[in-house]
Amino acid sequence: MKKYFFLISSIFLFFSCDDNSKHENITVKDITELNAAIAKSAPGDEIVMANGDWKDVKIKFVGYGNEQKPITLRAETPGKVLITGSSNLKLSGEYLIVDGLHFTNGSSPSEAVIDFGISQDSVANHCKVTNSVILDFNKSQRNETDLWVLFKGRHNELDHCYIAGKSNRGPTVRIDLAGNNSIKNYHKITNNYFGPRPPKGGPSAETIQLGNSFTSMAPSYTLVANNFFDHCNGEVEVISSKTNFNEFRNNVFYKSEGSLVTRHGNYCIIDGNVFIGDENSEQIGGIRLIGTGHWVTNNYFYNLNGKTFRSPLAVMNGIPKSPLNRYLQVTDVVVANNSWVNCVSPWQFGVGTNVDQKDILPASEIRSARPIRTIVANNLIYNDKGDNQPIIALDSIDGINFESNIINNQGVIFNTVKGLTQKDFSMSVAEGDVLMPEKSLSDFTQYKGFEFDQIKFDLFGNSRAKNNLVGAVIGTPVNKKDMMDVSQYGPAWFNSKSINDITSKTHTANSVAELTKAVLAANNGDTIVLSGTQYILSSSLKINKTLTITASNIATKAIIKYTGTSKTAAFEMNPKGKLTLKGIQLIGEKEQYAFASLSENMSSLYNLTVIDSEILDFDFVLKAYKLSFSEYITFKSTLIKNCTNGIEMSEETDDRGEYNAENIFIDNCHFENVSKNVIDYYRGGYDESTVGGNLIVTNSTFTNCGAKEEDGVLLNTYGIINVKLADNKFVNNPVKIVARLWGAKNNTHYNNEITNSGEIIVQENLPLKLMY
Amino acid sequence: MKKYFFLISSIFLFFSCDDNSKHENITVKDITELNAAIAKSAPGDEIVMANGDWKDVKIKFVGYGNEQKPITLRAETPGKVLITGSSNLKLSGEYLIVDGLHFTNGSSPSEAVIDFGISQDSVANHCKVTNSVILDFNKSQRNETDLWVLFKGRHNELDHCYIAGKSNRGPTVRIDLAGNNSIKNYHKITNNYFGPRPPKGGPSAETIQLGNSFTSMAPSYTLVANNFFDHCNGEVEVISSKTNFNEFRNNVFYKSEGSLVTRHGNYCIIDGNVFIGDENSEQIGGIRLIGTGHWVTNNYFYNLNGKTFRSPLAVMNGIPKSPLNRYLQVTDVVVANNSWVNCVSPWQFGVGTNVDQKDILPASEIRSARPIRTIVANNLIYNDKGDNQPIIALDSIDGINFESNIINNQGVIFNTVKGLTQKDFSMSVAEGDVLMPEKSLSDFTQYKGFEFDQIKFDLFGNSRAKNNLVGAVIGTPVNKKDMMDVSQYGPAWFNSKSINDITSKTHTANSVAELTKAVLAANNGDTIVLSGTQYILSSSLKINKTLTITASNIATKAIIKYTGTSKTAAFEMNPKGKLTLKGIQLIGEKEQYAFASLSENMSSLYNLTVIDSEILDFDFVLKAYKLSFSEYITFKSTLIKNCTNGIEMSEETDDRGEYNAENIFIDNCHFENVSKNVIDYYRGGYDESTVGGNLIVTNSTFTNCGAKEEDGVLLNTYGIINVKLADNKFVNNPVKIVARLWGAKNNTHYNNEITNSGEIIVQENLPLKLMY
Repeated sequence: MKKYFFLISSIFLFFSCDDNSKHENITVKDITELNAAIAKSAPGDEIVMANGDWKDVKIKFVGYGNEQKPITLRAETPGKVLITGSSNLKLSGEYLIVDGLHFTNGSSPSEAVIDFGISQDSVANHCKVTNSVILDFNKSQRNETDLWVLFKGRHNELDHCYIAGKSNRGPTVRIDLAGNNSIKNYHKITNNYFGPRPPKGGPSAETIQLGNSFTSMAPSYTLVANNFFDHCNGEVEVISSKTNFNEFRNNVFYKSEGSLVTRHGNYCIIDGNVFIGDENSEQIGGIRLIGTGHWVTNNYFYNLNGKTFRSPLAVMNGIPKSPLNRYLQVTDVVVANNSWVNCVSPWQFGVGTNVDQKDILPASEIRSARPIRTIVANNLIYNDKGDNQPIIALDSIDGINFESNIINNQGVIFNTVKGLTQKDFSMSVAEGDVLMPEKSLSDFTQYKGFEFDQIKFDLFGNSRAKNNLVGAVIGTPVNKKDMMDVSQYGPAWFNSKSINDITSKTHTANSVAELTKAVLAANNGDTIVLSGTQYILSSSLKINKTLTITASNIATKAIIKYTGTSKTAAFEMNPKGKLTLKGIQLIGEKEQYAFASLSENMSSLYNLTVIDSEILDFDFVLKAYKLSFSEYITFKSTLIKNCTNGIEMSEETDDRGEYNAENIFIDNCHFENVSKNVIDYYRGGYDESTVGGNLIVTNSTFTNCGAKEEDGVLLNTYGIINVKLADNKFVNNPVKIVARLWGAKNNTHYNNEITNSGEIIVQENLPLKLMY
Repeated sequence: MKKYFFLISSIFLFFSCDDNSKHENITVKDITELNAAIAKSAPGDEIVMANGDWKDVKIKFVGYGNEQKPITLRAETPGKVLITGSSNLKLSGEYLIVDGLHFTNGSSPSEAVIDFGISQDSVANHCKVTNSVILDFNKSQRNETDLWVLFKGRHNELDHCYIAGKSNRGPTVRIDLAGNNSIKNYHKITNNYFGPRPPKGGPSAETIQLGNSFTSMAPSYTLVANNFFDHCNGEVEVISSKTNFNEFRNNVFYKSEGSLVTRHGNYCIIDGNVFIGDENSEQIGGIRLIGTGHWVTNNYFYNLNGKTFRSPLAVMNGIPKSPLNRYLQVTDVVVANNSWVNCVSPWQFGVGTNVDQKDILPASEIRSARPIRTIVANNLIYNDKGDNQPIIALDSIDGINFESNIINNQGVIFNTVKGLTQKDFSMSVAEGDVLMPEKSLSDFTQYKGFEFDQIKFDLFGNSRAKNNLVGAVIGTPVNKKDMMDVSQYGPAWFNSKSINDITSKTHTANSVAELTKAVLAANNGDTIVLSGTQYILSSSLKINKTLTITASNIATKAIIKYTGTSKTAAFEMNPKGKLTLKGIQLIGEKEQYAFASLSENMSSLYNLTVIDSEILDFDFVLKAYKLSFSEYITFKSTLIKNCTNGIEMSEETDDRGEYNAENIFIDNCHFENVSKNVIDYYRGGYDESTVGGNLIVTNSTFTNCGAKEEDGVLLNTYGIINVKLADNKFVNNPVKIVARLWGAKNNTHYNNEITNSGEIIVQENLPLKLMY
């Protein structure tokens, strides 16, 4: 017997040695050498890209390795090979590995930065991109669409990469399933760090999209596991699963303003994920379910405050016999052994019901099909502070079977359901923010539904065979790394923290020359103190970094007089410009703008905060051009006076769900003699996947404004989902309407004093253009 | 080594013996004993139902066998246990076998005759019904819905059964996928003989339906293999696949008036099936494709003349973003290595396109989405007689990739496509009607598409590794039984031929008493010769069998005077009544009907043929009541005179696609002084799944008819799909319109002489009520 074994081993060894001897290891210094090396590459070869800046390179990595001997394309030193300019990477063939590249300071000339295919027929199989970075690799405007990683073919991997900063249209990562060679793909997206993606202000900004509605019948079997999603705020869906049999396991969604959504396709597994929220944000969601046969198990939800579409658990209503691109009914879904801790209204059912809009929407838009054959069992809800409404049923929940769920609501009474037991129990830390219930809960009998015996482990991989508990966690992690330890995600060589590290420096400017110089010289995060009293500024200050400009004495203010040409802005907001102005009296000459975005090439967003200041005598206070986008516009304790136009954010008139700013906050301001567009904020198009923007106007006064307002509305908020007008005074504004709010959405108003200024009206349903 | 083997064998033997010793073998004589036996059954038990008539039994076979030791419920002698009356069988549990039962002379009181489940949660798994018969087990009216075999659960089988004669609403066999316990079912339907199913005259009469549109996203994996479908004419779909990953292998579709249709769901395999047509029928179809990812390989089509929906190969247009219950676009479909021999226009693409109806139908009904990413390759077409139009493209075929197909069209020129080569080659018999091309065709290079290497075998299981040929067949069958040998299908004990064997006998009737007696006494298929000259019939003759009544001398005719009460029929057509009348002068007294169906409980169809006769002085010539159905109504060389109403087939006014007769043929007849409803034939409701009825009126004259016609139309054919009016004369009929034909459908008229009788008009589109 031994003899045979030896012989067989020898044969394997022999082949193995023979093959290894052929490996090549070629260092290439430019694209020509790289192309040549790729052209003659053979299984086992390693092509090494020399350190340096590889600018404007279109790499086609085509080759056929094999399972034992892949062909590798790697950086000489991981992270020291920068792919910049107009560059991209396409893979085609089998068993290829790309390792250690850093895409930065550029953008793709094609539909993707990294593409696992070069045509419909020539795709990659068994290929892997690992240990690489794609950072801010944005096309010049947000309406130019691309993907940063486009999967085609089968059995490809994205692994230990860091990807952040996408601002333009298009999911960060997409799985393409058109064509039989891309179905049953078994792709793996694992151990990546998906860094911050700013909100786009409209749809098509998912972090991962798996297929699309047209291929939603395809069997996909993509695995998304062990990734960290950090502030992935692009749109309402962080992950949009649009095909069948995908698996989402052990990912961390950290303060990401969106949800994991089973948008199309069916039979997905969502197991062992952690969702961490923030008590100050209502934008951070959990899991939203549409369709059939999903299993949602062992997930942990903490501190989530999202509502309806962004609920910790949102189970939607479908459209009866839904069109392919709309909402399939929820059927045969299992939600079992999950935990919700300190979430507000964690369970929301019938989300999206719009039966009351049946007179204004076509029948094919009415989500009246309630969940059926759906089981919610063995889950745990714990609230430090009792919740008045832990369960929100927006429609009848007669098709949902609740079994053996448990809640500690600190005795606060609520409208409960059969199958949810109220109990006084304690929680203890299992790891970080992940809490587990006291062991005595193991007396609580769990429901054993069809195939529930397959829920064998908890969130941490602990066996449920003994001492089983309801909820996601039955014990502390034993052989598992802390999921919140970010060092395990992305490339080891790349420190995601470093890019956000800001060592703030203060500059002093006593003259306009010094101010202009300081703005140029300042680093990200610096502050410029205006020590003089008056600055005559004759040309725009370009703001393209995080910068604070403040009077040395806020109370007395520094004066900036802008004398530039008409239709230019005192402060020109460039991509990534984040300006805070404090204690400034900014004075124009009627023809200019105080602040404006670029009129084109706004490849990334800008922010603007104005505090304790005065804005006087401008054509526009803030002029946002089409395709510009701001996450935060804040005016606080500021006087705005004698301007023709106010805050103008209404250029996205294509009615495709886009808008110019995510948040506009006005507090304790005084608007006086602003002739029109005092606040003009617009979002057009009926599309529930954009759930912004947000306008909060509080403690402010508006006097003698709107005299030239053509439509007679002082504050125009058409199509904005979240609007709050509270504690304001409107005095002597010659308009018919102060504001026309959208009753069906989250629009509120209270404590406003209105004198000789028309009225605030609430219109339940807006006439909207359907987007599909 | 040997020692070990012996030891292991012994252990198995030991266990095996131990278990066998516990088996029970219990014979039961009635339902009480049966229930008791089931209640105490254990793995390995055999419950034997004693031979005899088991009337009104509701059997709940609940038990848990295991793979090695199932629990069996079997007939003492296969076929000698008759299940009759109001009876059904439900199974629940695991590893149960039902063997040798014969369901006849009754109907199910529930939704199914055999049900693999007793409730949503209690279903059967790994259970089998074998060697059994369900024959004519119809509910009393065709609108009462049931199924004869309803699959639930997983891994169940229907095997070697004979099933025929279903007339009522509902598929013969249905797979139910609602609920997670019924998905991924891997059911097997194998080696069955599906005997004749008559047309139902409306939808919902499939022989096998796999799921429904609501569960069309479910993974099913049902196998339908090695079955014989003999004249399964229920409706336009013999098999309606409505879920994913089903497989249809090596079935024979013998002169079945319908198609194998991938109606909903995707990724089905249709491999190695044989479709045999009949040059006299345009109703017999092949494969109709809707949806994504189907593979159609190694199928053989012979002598098929079906058109559009019933084409030998029908590739449909879809509805863009189709609703769940309508038509998904065809994408990613492969049609490779199939053969069409002597078929008329075998390939039809863009079937169902109705773009020209966009003004009269809602957008959600317009099938404008053409097939994309679809490959038609390595197929063979052979015609003994050249076909003018072997390919019909009803819309652009720019999304279909034709590669390496071959045709011998005997030199007849046609509008061809790239990728179809015309070649002169011969065919030889591989087996029966299955022909194969000459070996020299192996020089013709085949297309190698993605995963085409998986097409490893031909229709007969011959390896394609060497000497491969285009088309379905590369050699004669080697180790395979002749697919056309029906002895391999259904139970060995049941001879399907015997039920259709008719030993015709002739009776002679000289008086009305003898006639009445003969009608009662006659067996199926007998003939009654009227040797007298006149018969005064005072009450209806009930016709419930196949019967011919003929004058002894056709030329001189026998007279039957009907003196029964008003609104009764001289001949009352009962279920299964198939009457042929020859040489009869049938005379009424104005108030009665010559022929009528039962007014209720028409559990099966009737047929009527009248030749060389005269029908005089009746209220109705033929009165068809609601829910009655006839496959053939034929009047030939017959005078119809002085009747208030003619042939009245218009009771199905629910507009659900139902109608009262499949075929009405009128040839060489004379209609004179028929006041209204001369021919009144109606089908309401927009539904392309009913492609009947059929009206052919030729060589006939209509004189002085329609005087009391309220709507002014002589021949009313509203909603009838196939109408032909040719070589008729219409003289002095006081109507505005002879007929209003439906231009968009198969309605034609020619060579009609119309004198003083209005006109024939053609209306392109009818206003129709949408059914869904």
